[in-house]
Amino acid sequence: MPGQRSDARRNYTRILEVAEAEVSAHGADASLEQIARVAGVGSATVRRHFPTRQALLHAVFHERVQALCARAREVDEAEDSRTALLTWLHDLLTYAVSARGLADVLAYEPPSENPGQDSCGAVLEAAGAPLLRHAISDGSVKETVTFHDLVTLTVGIALATEHQPDAAARADHLLRLAVDGVSPGSPPR
Amino acid sequence: MPGQRSDARRNYTRILEVAEAEVSAHGADASLEQIARVAGVGSATVRRHFPTRQALLHAVFHERVQALCARAREVDEAEDSRTALLTWLHDLLTYAVSARGLADVLAYEPPSENPGQDSCGAVLEAAGAPLLRHAISDGSVKETVTFHDLVTLTVGIALATEHQPDAAARADHLLRLAVDGVSPGSPPR
Repeated sequence: MPGQRSDARRNYTRILEVAEAEVSAHGADASLEQIARVAGVGSATVRRHFPTRQALLHAVFHERVQALCARAREVDEAEDSRTALLTWLHDLLTYAVSARGLADVLAYEPPSENPGQDSCGAVLEAAGAPLLRHAISDGSVKETVTFHDLVTLTVGIALATEHQPDAAARADHLLRLAVDGVSPGSPPR
Repeated sequence: MPGQRSDARRNYTRILEVAEAEVSAHGADASLEQIARVAGVGSATVRRHFPTRQALLHAVFHERVQALCARAREVDEAEDSRTALLTWLHDLLTYAVSARGLADVLAYEPPSENPGQDSCGAVLEAAGAPLLRHAISDGSVKETVTFHDLVTLTVGIALATEHQPDAAARADHLLRLAVDGVSPGSPPR
């Protein structure tokens, strides 16, 4: 029944558009009932397309997460391993500061907690963890640091600066501080 | 009219009790209407006692903030300046992880943003900033680090680990990482 299929497609597109706006306004805990209402569909329709909140958020952030995955492959080829890792973390931070809700999603779904799952955190970990492994094997990052550590710090900085004036610059400054540490002297390499 | 005054006192105490429970359950953006409803008073009564959300939150966190201020004086006398600062930051982190909403309050009211105001951030800054000044003048922390930087990093770590298993230990680990930086070698002094 092609009519039903194209209805379903239209509903999917409409729900996703509304979800993007609602998550942008209210963060990752945007109301699913409100999304259904604004999209003009029932809650059951939302659940049929997106069985869990995680599935909906994954769809909302899909393009940004894919861009970060592409970026991880790009920096890995072009830079030394430590610069590649730090460049990518700054890119992740820039996304997290600008895309309200992505930091919430990653805080709720920390990478490594859901191995094998199709969550934003798991997809980012698959792309970003090789950058950390390379930096550790080159001896430019200490081997006790985990990918989960770095993402959680980055997410925390995005969450804590969200309401500050000039959030992007503040966040960038704090990530550099956390990477370098508080001790005097030029940043160690 | 003593009857009116004791009514007002009872209302104040009741509103504060309810506010503590609501902030503990829902964080710093707990509904003021809900607080009024549960306390059995009108919204106008809540506003008369606590003209702003900030005033209410300050009252909710008053004891914890006072304990942190006392702790700052205590560590400043007992420890070397860098240990004193880091011990106090870990204490702040422990409070922020255990007291749902304190991290939100500090993220919304970053220290240095409201100088002279009676906000939680301003009170903590008055007590904690001398620890940073001492560590900087001893040369054990670089002079570009601000109190605002350290509080924002600590608050971010509390926010990002809130939903993780064993949040307190994770948060503590991440603060150590941010203080030491990611480079190999023993933590610089």
